[in-house]
Amino acid sequence: MRGAFIGVGVGPGDPDLLTVRALRALGDADRVFSPTMAVDAVGRAESIVRQADPAIRVERLVFAIRRDEDARSKAHQEAANRIVACVDAGERVAFITLGDPNVYSTFHHLARLVVEQRPHVPVETVPGIMAFQDLASRAGLVVLDGTERLQLVSAVDGVGAVEAALDDEGAAVIVYKGGRHLPAIAKRLEAKARLDGAVFGELLGLPGERIGAVKEYADAPAAYLATVIVPPAR
Amino acid sequence: MRGAFIGVGVGPGDPDLLTVRALRALGDADRVFSPTMAVDAVGRAESIVRQADPAIRVERLVFAIRRDEDARSKAHQEAANRIVACVDAGERVAFITLGDPNVYSTFHHLARLVVEQRPHVPVETVPGIMAFQDLASRAGLVVLDGTERLQLVSAVDGVGAVEAALDDEGAAVIVYKGGRHLPAIAKRLEAKARLDGAVFGELLGLPGERIGAVKEYADAPAAYLATVIVPPAR
Repeated sequence: MRGAFIGVGVGPGDPDLLTVRALRALGDADRVFSPTMAVDAVGRAESIVRQADPAIRVERLVFAIRRDEDARSKAHQEAANRIVACVDAGERVAFITLGDPNVYSTFHHLARLVVEQRPHVPVETVPGIMAFQDLASRAGLVVLDGTERLQLVSAVDGVGAVEAALDDEGAAVIVYKGGRHLPAIAKRLEAKARLDGAVFGELLGLPGERIGAVKEYADAPAAYLATVIVPPAR
Repeated sequence: MRGAFIGVGVGPGDPDLLTVRALRALGDADRVFSPTMAVDAVGRAESIVRQADPAIRVERLVFAIRRDEDARSKAHQEAANRIVACVDAGERVAFITLGDPNVYSTFHHLARLVVEQRPHVPVETVPGIMAFQDLASRAGLVVLDGTERLQLVSAVDGVGAVEAALDDEGAAVIVYKGGRHLPAIAKRLEAKARLDGAVFGELLGLPGERIGAVKEYADAPAAYLATVIVPPAR
């Protein structure tokens, strides 16, 4: 039996940001699953993998992303059951995830449900380039120099976490999932005199990509997976 | 003239963690430079690239890593002059760097010196997998879940930065360049009740790699580029 469950990070959007290890893991897998909103919707991770290697066949697992906790739990459990059936058949099952599978990813929730049922199934992950790295590269921004610190926060619950991180003036602050709150984030940056130099990016590596100064884009909400980088006070 | 200067992240050690974009950038470059301690010393970044693609010829730029500020400045300026001569000849010049070129890398110091002399030379970077991502993957550690925060600090100047970051109990704390201070870091982790679950890694993807619990390795200093990940209190 070679059954295994592997979380594969596919980066933020551009297929050439996949690693050699990720491509090999996908090529070696007997089955590649992708999270999606509906069975007929091609998710962002699936789109990346199809461009990287059209020979890889991606199957969709429908997840309820909405805030309905019960629906989400049920979807996760159904996905886990499907994965367990595959590993029971001896398959190496890959699950593709945007960015890195150990940073804000659904992968380990699924892995936990799989391991609850099959404690001896090997679980592996393949790291992936994170959105902030791609944004820093495209914007020509040095994130950390010397002994500067980094704070990475999620704004999915609001701007409170951003505000606290900004108090650390010597730290680069990276904000994920803050698209909806972009105007409020820009106000906080301005109040702390850190709006200048802050960069914004959404749909990185995808059609309609937007990259620029936060102050240029702060008049309206942005995409859910928008990224903001605030450089340290230098 | 197609002269350009490109910082290429080659990841922490394992050649299969290079991205497709990095391999392409190295293949397209007219010249690939690598930082090294001596002209006859194969640096870690060079070793990674040679394994990833033996056809790529890597030339060494000797950097003084010691704490002699003058010697370091002089070495950087000589390296920049060499790079300027190459871009003046119309070459695409790649400079390889461990991890990511925008996170604690020497690349942008060189780039600044090059641009001082040739303001119109295009400067690009290619992101690379960072050591903490590889360590998390190898150790089976979920770095961030839900709305958890991350603090990344350098311990090159001592454990003060680590101590401050540990006060944020809900944050994952990642410590870079803390090898020399590993016993002191472990003591601080114990004092804050965060030693259990903290993982350590050095020489990731290289011969002699060590990965395990911080408390297993805390009796002696570790390699300069050691990585520690302290998960959030969960």
